[in-house]
Amino acid sequence: MTGSPHHPIVHVEYPAWVDSVVDWERSYVSDQERMRLAIAVSRANVENATGGPFGAAIFEARSGHLVAVGMNSVVRLNNCTLHGETMAFMMAQQRVGSYTLNGPNMPAHELYTSCEPCAMCLGATLWSGVQRVVYGAAREDASLLHFEEGPVFPESYHYLEQRGIRIERNVLREEARAVLELYRAQSGKIYNA
Amino acid sequence: MTGSPHHPIVHVEYPAWVDSVVDWERSYVSDQERMRLAIAVSRANVENATGGPFGAAIFEARSGHLVAVGMNSVVRLNNCTLHGETMAFMMAQQRVGSYTLNGPNMPAHELYTSCEPCAMCLGATLWSGVQRVVYGAAREDASLLHFEEGPVFPESYHYLEQRGIRIERNVLREEARAVLELYRAQSGKIYNA
Repeated sequence: MTGSPHHPIVHVEYPAWVDSVVDWERSYVSDQERMRLAIAVSRANVENATGGPFGAAIFEARSGHLVAVGMNSVVRLNNCTLHGETMAFMMAQQRVGSYTLNGPNMPAHELYTSCEPCAMCLGATLWSGVQRVVYGAAREDASLLHFEEGPVFPESYHYLEQRGIRIERNVLREEARAVLELYRAQSGKIYNA
Repeated sequence: MTGSPHHPIVHVEYPAWVDSVVDWERSYVSDQERMRLAIAVSRANVENATGGPFGAAIFEARSGHLVAVGMNSVVRLNNCTLHGETMAFMMAQQRVGSYTLNGPNMPAHELYTSCEPCAMCLGATLWSGVQRVVYGAAREDASLLHFEEGPVFPESYHYLEQRGIRIERNVLREEARAVLELYRAQSGKIYNA
Protein backbone atom coordinates (compact mmCIF):
# COMPACT_ATOMS: atom_id res chain seq x y z
CA MET A 1 0.00 0.00 0.00
CA THR A 2 2.21 2.79 -1.23
CA GLY A 3 -0.38 4.45 -3.46
CA SER A 4 0.03 5.51 -7.09
CA PRO A 5 2.81 7.83 -8.34
CA HIS A 6 0.63 10.91 -7.99
CA HIS A 7 -0.98 9.75 -4.76
CA PRO A 8 1.67 8.25 -2.54
CA ILE A 9 0.55 6.87 0.81
CA VAL A 10 2.93 7.26 3.68
CA HIS A 11 2.71 4.63 6.42
CA VAL A 12 4.53 5.04 9.66
CA GLU A 13 4.82 1.87 11.74
CA TYR A 14 7.17 0.59 14.42
CA PRO A 15 9.77 -2.00 13.51
CA ALA A 16 8.95 -5.54 14.62
CA TRP A 17 11.34 -5.54 17.60
CA VAL A 18 9.49 -2.83 19.54
CA ASP A 19 7.70 -5.17 21.99
CA SER A 20 10.94 -6.90 22.89
CA VAL A 21 12.25 -3.60 24.28
CA VAL A 22 9.18 -1.71 25.45
CA ASP A 23 7.02 -2.69 28.42
CA TRP A 24 3.78 -0.87 27.67
CA GLU A 25 2.01 -1.71 30.91
CA ARG A 26 4.37 -0.64 33.65
CA SER A 27 4.56 2.81 35.15
CA TYR A 28 7.78 4.76 34.59
CA VAL A 29 8.30 6.88 37.68
CA SER A 30 11.57 8.80 37.60
CA ASP A 31 13.37 10.83 34.95
CA GLN A 32 16.03 8.11 34.92
CA GLU A 33 13.55 5.28 34.30
CA ARG A 34 11.92 7.20 31.49
CA MET A 35 15.20 8.19 29.90
CA ARG A 36 16.44 4.63 30.17
CA LEU A 37 13.54 3.55 27.96
CA ALA A 38 14.33 6.20 25.34
CA ILE A 39 17.95 5.02 25.35
CA ALA A 40 16.91 1.34 25.14
CA VAL A 41 14.88 2.22 22.05
CA SER A 42 17.85 4.04 20.51
CA ARG A 43 20.09 1.04 21.22
CA ALA A 44 17.66 -1.49 19.77
CA ASN A 45 17.38 0.65 16.65
CA VAL A 46 21.12 0.35 16.15
CA GLU A 47 21.37 -3.32 17.11
CA ASN A 48 18.57 -4.23 14.70
CA ALA A 49 19.95 -1.95 11.98
CA THR A 50 16.59 -0.21 11.59
CA GLY A 51 17.88 3.35 11.82
CA GLY A 52 20.08 5.97 13.43
CA PRO A 53 21.02 5.91 17.13
CA PHE A 54 18.13 8.02 18.38
CA GLY A 55 15.12 7.03 20.49
CA ALA A 56 12.32 8.91 22.20
CA ALA A 57 9.35 8.27 24.46
CA ILE A 58 6.33 10.27 25.58
CA PHE A 59 4.82 9.85 29.03
CA GLU A 60 2.01 11.30 31.02
CA ALA A 61 3.97 13.43 33.47
CA ARG A 62 2.23 12.54 36.69
CA SER A 63 1.22 8.90 36.25
CA GLY A 64 4.29 7.77 34.35
CA HIS A 65 2.02 6.07 31.82
CA LEU A 66 3.84 5.42 28.54
CA VAL A 67 1.93 6.84 25.56
CA ALA A 68 4.29 6.24 22.64
CA VAL A 69 7.88 5.69 21.62
CA GLY A 70 9.71 6.77 18.49
CA MET A 71 12.96 5.75 16.80
CA ASN A 72 14.86 7.29 13.95
CA SER A 73 13.25 5.76 10.84
CA VAL A 74 14.58 8.05 8.11
CA VAL A 75 16.32 5.37 6.05
CA ARG A 76 13.95 2.50 6.88
CA LEU A 77 10.90 4.44 5.71
CA ASN A 78 12.51 6.81 3.18
CA ASN A 79 11.27 9.82 5.08
CA CYS A 80 13.57 12.63 6.24
CA THR A 81 11.05 13.85 8.81
CA LEU A 82 10.99 10.63 10.84
CA HIS A 83 13.37 11.37 13.68
CA GLY A 84 12.79 9.68 17.04
CA GLU A 85 10.97 12.71 18.45
CA THR A 86 8.68 13.42 15.49
CA MET A 87 7.74 9.76 15.25
CA ALA A 88 6.92 9.72 18.98
CA PHE A 89 4.70 12.81 18.53
CA MET A 90 2.85 11.26 15.58
CA MET A 91 2.32 7.96 17.35
CA ALA A 92 1.17 9.62 20.58
CA GLN A 93 -1.26 11.89 18.74
CA GLN A 94 -2.62 8.99 16.70
CA ARG A 95 -3.13 7.05 19.90
CA VAL A 96 -4.94 9.80 21.79
CA GLY A 97 -6.81 10.98 18.68
CA SER A 98 -5.71 14.60 18.91
CA TYR A 99 -3.26 16.86 17.08
CA THR A 100 -2.08 18.20 20.42
CA LEU A 101 -1.06 16.49 23.65
CA ASN A 102 -2.20 19.58 25.52
CA GLY A 103 -5.92 19.36 24.77
CA PRO A 104 -8.78 20.02 27.19
CA ASN A 105 -8.93 17.51 30.05
CA MET A 106 -5.65 15.90 29.05
CA PRO A 107 -2.92 15.20 31.58
CA ALA A 108 0.44 16.91 31.02
CA HIS A 109 2.76 15.05 28.66
CA GLU A 110 6.56 15.01 28.54
CA LEU A 111 9.09 14.06 25.87
CA TYR A 112 12.20 12.05 26.70
CA THR A 113 14.75 11.81 23.95
CA SER A 114 18.10 10.06 23.92
CA CYS A 115 19.80 13.03 22.26
CA GLU A 116 19.31 16.79 22.09
CA PRO A 117 16.61 17.56 19.48
CA CYS A 118 17.50 18.94 16.05
CA ALA A 119 15.94 22.14 14.69
CA MET A 120 13.01 20.27 13.12
CA CYS A 121 12.23 18.34 16.28
CA LEU A 122 12.56 21.39 18.51
CA GLY A 123 10.03 23.16 16.28
CA ALA A 124 7.72 20.14 16.37
CA THR A 125 8.02 20.11 20.17
CA LEU A 126 6.34 23.48 20.25
CA TRP A 127 3.41 22.22 18.16
CA SER A 128 3.15 18.85 19.94
CA GLY A 129 1.68 20.02 23.21
CA VAL A 130 4.32 18.43 25.48
CA GLN A 131 5.15 20.57 28.48
CA ARG A 132 8.63 19.33 29.26
CA VAL A 133 11.57 18.00 27.25
CA VAL A 134 14.26 15.82 28.82
CA TYR A 135 17.28 14.91 26.74
CA GLY A 136 20.29 12.62 27.23
CA ALA A 137 23.30 13.11 24.97
CA ALA A 138 24.14 16.64 23.84
CA ARG A 139 24.50 18.24 20.43
CA GLU A 140 28.29 17.98 20.69
CA ASP A 141 28.05 14.22 21.20
CA ALA A 142 26.02 13.82 18.01
CA SER A 143 28.33 16.16 16.09
CA LEU A 144 31.21 13.78 16.75
CA LEU A 145 29.36 11.29 14.54
CA HIS A 146 28.75 13.99 11.95
CA PHE A 147 25.05 14.11 12.73
CA GLU A 148 23.95 17.66 12.04
CA GLU A 149 21.45 19.29 14.40
CA GLY A 150 20.54 22.25 12.21
CA PRO A 151 19.81 25.86 13.18
CA VAL A 152 19.32 25.58 16.96
CA PHE A 153 20.53 28.52 19.06
CA PRO A 154 20.28 29.47 22.73
CA GLU A 155 17.40 31.76 21.69
CA SER A 156 15.58 28.71 20.31
CA TYR A 157 15.41 27.24 23.81
CA HIS A 158 14.44 30.60 25.29
CA TYR A 159 11.59 30.76 22.79
CA LEU A 160 10.22 27.41 24.00
CA GLU A 161 10.76 28.25 27.65
CA GLN A 162 8.91 31.54 27.24
CA ARG A 163 5.96 29.46 26.05
CA GLY A 164 5.99 27.28 29.14
CA ILE A 165 8.06 24.31 27.98
CA ARG A 166 10.65 23.21 30.51
CA ILE A 167 13.97 21.75 29.33
CA GLU A 168 16.06 19.23 31.28
CA ARG A 169 19.52 18.48 29.92
CA ASN A 170 22.07 15.65 29.99
CA VAL A 171 20.04 13.05 31.92
CA LEU A 172 21.98 9.75 31.68
CA ARG A 173 24.19 11.45 29.12
CA GLU A 174 26.90 8.79 29.27
CA GLU A 175 24.45 5.94 28.66
CA ALA A 176 22.95 7.80 25.74
CA ARG A 177 26.35 8.66 24.33
CA ALA A 178 27.40 4.99 24.50
CA VAL A 179 24.74 4.21 21.88
CA LEU A 180 26.16 6.87 19.58
CA GLU A 181 29.54 5.18 19.95
CA LEU A 182 27.98 1.78 19.27
CA TYR A 183 26.50 3.15 16.07
CA ARG A 184 29.85 4.48 14.98
CA ALA A 185 31.47 1.08 15.56
CA GLN A 186 28.62 -0.85 13.95
CA SER A 187 28.34 1.44 10.93
CA GLY A 188 32.02 0.88 10.36
CA LYS A 189 31.26 -2.85 10.25
CA ILE A 190 28.19 -2.57 8.05
CA TYR A 191 29.12 0.08 5.52
CA ASN A 192 32.86 -0.11 5.25
CA ALA A 193 33.19 -3.88 5.08
CA MET B 1 -6.19 0.69 9.67
CA THR B 2 -5.07 2.66 12.66
CA GLY B 3 -3.32 -0.20 14.46
CA SER B 4 -3.70 -1.23 18.11
CA PRO B 5 -3.25 1.13 21.08
CA HIS B 6 0.40 0.18 21.51
CA HIS B 7 1.08 0.00 17.79
CA PRO B 8 -0.61 2.92 16.09
CA ILE B 9 -0.26 3.16 12.33
CA VAL B 10 0.01 6.62 10.87
CA HIS B 11 -1.28 7.04 7.32
CA VAL B 12 -0.65 10.20 5.40
CA GLU B 13 -2.83 10.64 2.31
CA TYR B 14 -4.03 13.58 0.25
CA PRO B 15 -7.60 14.77 0.64
CA ALA B 16 -9.94 13.72 -2.16
CA TRP B 17 -9.97 17.12 -3.89
CA VAL B 18 -6.29 17.08 -4.85
CA ASP B 19 -6.77 16.11 -8.52
CA SER B 20 -9.29 18.88 -9.04
CA VAL B 21 -6.57 21.44 -8.26
CA VAL B 22 -3.33 19.80 -9.34
CA ASP B 23 -2.35 19.07 -12.95
CA TRP B 24 0.30 16.38 -12.50
CA GLU B 25 1.32 16.15 -16.15
CA ARG B 26 2.16 19.69 -17.17
CA SER B 27 5.50 21.35 -16.79
CA TYR B 28 5.68 24.32 -14.42
CA VAL B 29 8.25 26.69 -15.85
CA SER B 30 8.53 29.91 -13.87
CA ASP B 31 8.68 30.70 -10.16
CA GLN B 32 5.27 32.33 -10.55
CA GLU B 33 3.65 29.26 -12.12
CA ARG B 34 5.08 27.02 -9.41
CA MET B 35 4.09 29.35 -6.60
CA ARG B 36 0.62 29.69 -8.07
CA LEU B 37 0.18 25.92 -7.64
CA ALA B 38 1.29 26.04 -4.00
CA ILE B 39 -1.18 28.87 -3.40
CA ALA B 40 -3.98 26.99 -5.23
CA VAL B 41 -3.38 24.06 -2.91
CA SER B 42 -3.52 26.33 0.14
CA ARG B 43 -6.77 27.86 -1.12
CA ALA B 44 -8.41 24.49 -1.84
CA ASN B 45 -7.46 23.34 1.66
CA VAL B 46 -9.40 26.26 3.10
CA GLU B 47 -12.34 26.03 0.70
CA ASN B 48 -12.74 22.31 1.40
CA ALA B 49 -12.20 22.78 5.14
CA THR B 50 -9.47 20.15 5.20
CA GLY B 51 -6.88 22.22 7.04
CA GLY B 52 -5.03 25.45 7.60
CA PRO B 53 -4.28 27.96 4.80
CA PHE B 54 -0.90 26.56 3.83
CA GLY B 55 0.15 24.71 0.67
CA ALA B 56 3.45 23.55 -0.79
CA ALA B 57 4.82 21.88 -3.90
CA ILE B 58 8.13 20.28 -4.87
CA PHE B 59 9.48 20.48 -8.40
CA GLU B 60 12.50 19.32 -10.29
CA ALA B 61 14.29 22.63 -10.72
CA ARG B 62 15.26 22.41 -14.36
CA SER B 63 12.41 20.45 -15.97
CA GLY B 64 9.59 21.95 -13.93
CA HIS B 65 8.27 18.44 -13.33
CA LEU B 66 5.93 18.34 -10.32
CA VAL B 67 6.98 15.68 -7.81
CA ALA B 68 4.58 16.23 -4.91
CA VAL B 69 2.32 18.70 -3.17
CA GLY B 70 1.51 19.10 0.49
CA MET B 71 -1.23 20.85 2.44
CA ASN B 72 -1.61 21.54 6.14
CA SER B 73 -3.23 18.37 7.51
CA VAL B 74 -2.68 18.81 11.24
CA VAL B 75 -6.33 18.71 12.28
CA ARG B 76 -7.57 16.38 9.52
CA LEU B 77 -5.03 13.69 10.41
CA ASN B 78 -4.45 14.48 14.12
CA ASN B 79 -0.76 15.02 13.53
CA CYS B 80 1.06 18.18 14.58
CA THR B 81 3.95 17.50 12.21
CA LEU B 82 1.86 17.62 9.02
CA HIS B 83 2.43 21.13 7.76
CA GLY B 84 2.28 21.77 4.01
CA GLU B 85 6.05 21.58 3.64
CA THR B 86 6.67 18.44 5.71
CA MET B 87 3.84 16.65 3.93
CA ALA B 88 5.32 17.64 0.56
CA PHE B 89 8.74 16.28 1.65
CA MET B 90 7.24 12.97 2.80
CA MET B 91 5.19 12.53 -0.34
CA ALA B 92 8.09 13.42 -2.65
CA GLN B 93 10.44 11.04 -0.83
CA GLN B 94 7.87 8.25 -0.89
CA ARG B 95 7.44 8.82 -4.61
CA VAL B 96 11.13 8.79 -5.50
CA GLY B 97 11.91 6.05 -2.97
CA SER B 98 14.64 7.96 -1.15
CA TYR B 99 14.98 9.76 2.18
CA THR B 100 16.73 12.61 0.39
CA LEU B 101 15.86 14.55 -2.74
CA ASN B 102 19.57 15.17 -3.26
CA GLY B 103 20.66 11.60 -3.90
CA PRO B 104 23.16 10.41 -6.52
CA ASN B 105 21.98 10.98 -10.10
CA MET B 106 18.93 12.95 -8.96
CA PRO B 107 18.02 16.28 -10.53
CA ALA B 108 17.95 19.32 -8.22
CA HIS B 109 14.65 19.78 -6.36
CA GLU B 110 13.02 22.97 -5.09
CA LEU B 111 10.33 23.68 -2.50
CA TYR B 112 7.61 26.25 -3.13
CA THR B 113 5.49 27.12 -0.13
CA SER B 114 2.61 29.55 0.14
CA CYS B 115 3.93 30.96 3.42
CA GLU B 116 7.29 31.35 5.12
CA PRO B 117 8.23 28.04 6.79
CA CYS B 118 7.97 27.56 10.55
CA ALA B 119 10.91 26.37 12.66
CA MET B 120 10.02 22.70 12.18
CA CYS B 121 9.67 23.01 8.42
CA LEU B 122 12.86 25.04 8.07
CA GLY B 123 14.70 22.29 9.93
CA ALA B 124 13.08 19.63 7.74
CA THR B 125 14.14 21.62 4.67
CA LEU B 126 17.75 21.03 5.61
CA TRP B 127 17.19 17.25 5.84
CA SER B 128 14.98 17.04 2.74
CA GLY B 129 17.63 17.56 0.10
CA VAL B 130 15.90 20.47 -1.68
CA GLN B 131 18.35 23.06 -2.94
CA ARG B 132 16.11 26.10 -3.06
CA VAL B 133 13.12 27.39 -1.06
CA VAL B 134 10.66 29.88 -2.51
CA TYR B 135 7.99 31.30 -0.25
CA GLY B 136 4.96 33.55 -0.76
CA ALA B 137 3.43 35.21 2.30
CA ALA B 138 5.75 36.26 5.12
CA ARG B 139 5.91 35.38 8.80
CA GLU B 140 4.22 38.70 9.66
CA ASP B 141 1.26 37.83 7.44
CA ALA B 142 0.73 34.53 9.27
CA SER B 143 1.19 36.18 12.66
CA LEU B 144 -1.81 38.37 11.93
CA LEU B 145 -3.90 35.20 12.04
CA HIS B 146 -2.14 34.14 15.24
CA PHE B 147 -0.29 31.35 13.48
CA GLU B 148 2.98 30.94 15.31
CA GLU B 149 6.14 30.26 13.32
CA GLY B 150 8.34 29.21 16.22
CA PRO B 151 12.04 29.89 16.83
CA VAL B 152 13.19 31.13 13.41
CA PHE B 153 15.87 33.83 13.40
CA PRO B 154 17.95 35.53 10.70
CA GLU B 155 20.78 33.13 11.70
CA SER B 156 18.47 30.21 10.88
CA TYR B 157 18.39 31.32 7.24
CA HIS B 158 22.13 31.97 7.25
CA TYR B 159 22.63 28.42 8.50
CA LEU B 160 20.71 27.00 5.52
CA GLU B 161 22.37 29.34 3.03
CA GLN B 162 25.81 28.35 4.30
CA ARG B 163 24.85 24.77 3.41
CA GLY B 164 23.96 25.71 -0.15
CA ILE B 165 20.19 26.22 0.12
CA ARG B 166 19.00 29.34 -1.68
CA ILE B 167 16.01 31.30 -0.32
CA GLU B 168 13.62 33.35 -2.44
CA ARG B 169 11.14 35.52 -0.55
CA ASN B 170 7.70 37.05 -1.10
CA VAL B 171 6.91 35.58 -4.53
CA LEU B 172 3.21 36.32 -5.23
CA ARG B 173 2.95 37.46 -1.62
CA GLU B 174 -0.38 39.21 -2.11
CA GLU B 175 -2.03 36.15 -3.69
CA ALA B 176 -0.72 33.99 -0.86
CA ARG B 177 -1.84 36.46 1.76
CA ALA B 178 -5.34 36.56 0.28
CA VAL B 179 -5.75 32.89 1.26
CA LEU B 180 -4.77 33.70 4.83
CA GLU B 181 -7.48 36.36 4.81
CA LEU B 182 -9.98 33.90 3.33
CA TYR B 183 -9.20 31.51 6.16
CA ARG B 184 -9.79 34.20 8.71
CA ALA B 185 -13.15 35.05 7.18
CA GLN B 186 -14.17 31.39 6.76
CA SER B 187 -13.03 30.34 10.22
CA GLY B 188 -15.15 33.12 11.58
CA LYS B 189 -18.11 31.56 9.80
CA ILE B 190 -17.32 28.00 10.85
CA TYR B 191 -16.17 28.31 14.42
CA ASN B 192 -17.89 31.41 15.72
CA ALA B 193 -21.34 30.77 14.30
